[in-house]
Amino acid sequence: MEENQSIINTGLRGVTIASTRISDVDGVAGRLIYRGYLVQDLAEKAGYEEVVYLLLYENLPDKQQLKEFKKRLAAERFITPEVIEALKACPADALPMDILQAGVALLANGDADVQQQTAEAVDRMAVRLIAKFPVLLAAWERIRTGKTVVEAASDLDHAANFMYMLTGERPDEDLAHFMDVALVLHAEHSFNASTFSARQVASTRAHMYAAVSAAVGSLSGELHGGANVRVMQMLKRIGTKDAVEEYVNTELEAGRVLFGLGHAVYKTDDPRAHILAPMSQKLCRRIGEEHWYEISRELEQKGKAAFKARKGIEIYTNVDFYSASLYYAMGIPIDFFTPVFAVSRVAGWTAHVIEEQFAGAAGKPTLYRPESDYIGDYCGPAECAFVSMDER
Amino acid sequence: MEENQSIINTGLRGVTIASTRISDVDGVAGRLIYRGYLVQDLAEKAGYEEVVYLLLYENLPDKQQLKEFKKRLAAERFITPEVIEALKACPADALPMDILQAGVALLANGDADVQQQTAEAVDRMAVRLIAKFPVLLAAWERIRTGKTVVEAASDLDHAANFMYMLTGERPDEDLAHFMDVALVLHAEHSFNASTFSARQVASTRAHMYAAVSAAVGSLSGELHGGANVRVMQMLKRIGTKDAVEEYVNTELEAGRVLFGLGHAVYKTDDPRAHILAPMSQKLCRRIGEEHWYEISRELEQKGKAAFKARKGIEIYTNVDFYSASLYYAMGIPIDFFTPVFAVSRVAGWTAHVIEEQFAGAAGKPTLYRPESDYIGDYCGPAECAFVSMDER
Repeated sequence: MEENQSIINTGLRGVTIASTRISDVDGVAGRLIYRGYLVQDLAEKAGYEEVVYLLLYENLPDKQQLKEFKKRLAAERFITPEVIEALKACPADALPMDILQAGVALLANGDADVQQQTAEAVDRMAVRLIAKFPVLLAAWERIRTGKTVVEAASDLDHAANFMYMLTGERPDEDLAHFMDVALVLHAEHSFNASTFSARQVASTRAHMYAAVSAAVGSLSGELHGGANVRVMQMLKRIGTKDAVEEYVNTELEAGRVLFGLGHAVYKTDDPRAHILAPMSQKLCRRIGEEHWYEISRELEQKGKAAFKARKGIEIYTNVDFYSASLYYAMGIPIDFFTPVFAVSRVAGWTAHVIEEQFAGAAGKPTLYRPESDYIGDYCGPAECAFVSMDER
Repeated sequence: MEENQSIINTGLRGVTIASTRISDVDGVAGRLIYRGYLVQDLAEKAGYEEVVYLLLYENLPDKQQLKEFKKRLAAERFITPEVIEALKACPADALPMDILQAGVALLANGDADVQQQTAEAVDRMAVRLIAKFPVLLAAWERIRTGKTVVEAASDLDHAANFMYMLTGERPDEDLAHFMDVALVLHAEHSFNASTFSARQVASTRAHMYAAVSAAVGSLSGELHGGANVRVMQMLKRIGTKDAVEEYVNTELEAGRVLFGLGHAVYKTDDPRAHILAPMSQKLCRRIGEEHWYEISRELEQKGKAAFKARKGIEIYTNVDFYSASLYYAMGIPIDFFTPVFAVSRVAGWTAHVIEEQFAGAAGKPTLYRPESDYIGDYCGPAECAFVSMDER
């Protein structure tokens, strides 16, 4: 193997690849907007279904529209016996994100809309996927723990029904509300890695399920949606508030990162972190484990100070930082934290797939096909002469 | 819904996003190189396993290395009973690419290497995936047609064993050789859409299966690997050589495309088409259906002439153009054409995932996180004031 130039890859940082009407992330001002609305306003005043409607149809729904949209979503809260059967064949220790990536691809089976490329067919697939994500994941949680799969409760909203199908118990008002807010906050974030994957797959004219399944794979990475799991593992490793300072110093000394601090885009606190933190505090207190919140808070302060002192840089909490302790206090299994992120983000993914497929100047997708720079000069600038087996 | 500026998306055409040592596509010269070697030389002189070795390890293997590598691949020619069980739960009319995308994600289950990020673990997953793609697809073909799943034949090479597991019959020399050459020709093509998807998912530090499953989704689109299916459907619609000219005129008049003609990168005939054409001719003749080849040849000539006459542009055959009739003459079911492409391209995908994960300047992946330009001025340049439900 020749040692040539090293591979250059800047991860497309700072490269504007498309325009979008779906959301705006202003990382300097710490401002996140869905279709014109500040995420703080939406988290405070709108429910998840309202926000999904906004993302898909560009306007907040009126009362009647919301009622009908909730009905459409509720009517899709099932997965076929074939998919349940396939899940039952999976080993109980399978990673939930692998199950979700496979499950989404399996959901395509039997949906005749996959062969259509009309706006109506794509809209139906989007609604189905948004409705079925919680159903699929809840079914897997029940199956892997040897419990009966719970039927959807048609009188519950999206977030509450997810909790119900996951646990078999109707969540109280706080739990349902906090899950709803968490779903609102994670629903959309412009061209993040998983959304970019979804758009990219859709750009080949692959169907909605193929695109969304790919996005699930992308979200699973620890530099993306997998980060909330890493945050919780970190909190558990630290264990007590008093151990935070030493942990921070040890990790930074060793050149390791502090999960949940720092973000590719934000140069200030992620606006979502400020909404998640008080919810985390309230629920951690409720279950008598306020230390998870306290460790987080201490880690935020000590981590920020240490980065400033050691590297002279400001570092900020991101969306994963307080969602970890929040989900934990909600009783969500740690390996389901990233799937919960997916349950929310599927709204953004589907909105982006629709934009990719229909909103371009030509009214159809443009295949993403970047260039690369070949630096494999194995035989110098010319191609290699083939060497027959006997001469190798 | 406000009508704002239209969405701009140039599909990253002409944008160099990374350097690579894996392959070079010179679209102007019609030159395709894998790790320094011309694809024509490899197709003529090397087998698929040799080429896979080259792609993964940067050098052509010597006799002993090739022997050991073939042994490693052959030892992985199985899928677990759990995956077989999951496939059996799927409806027989499922799209094979959906089954493959799901199946690859399911293959992750029980592979302890998914939790590792070492070069050794990633290499093992690459070899497993390359070995298991044909096994998974052949199993699905047998299951959906109600036949017994065929056990791998350890004495057969990769291509021949694929044909054997698919059909239950050992292929003769021509069939095995032509499948082998087809696999060599489709193995790698730099930053094409599916490879870009794989790299993009891997850049989040998601595992190899997640990345490759996403790539399968991307390949399924008709602007990418799905094109070979479209070519065959087109040949069937045309039916006879005499009908070609009228078909060409009708399609171009209606503003539709001719599948298999034109490519995002090549500005001359795809070098792979010249190798596939004579193989297609030979096999079509052998099964007494030379008209598929003849329609293709006529379509190439009439299509090129019509494009020149009507639009003043040169258009060229791409890799899908002659692979369609070749696969058909081999007895491959039409909806398996794109899966056969995947059986080959998984070599390129895994090589790229390895490069993405380890060859960067920092020795670890850089998350792809492009920027987008928000043009959703729903309320003018400022954000929208939230409108309460009662006022909508």
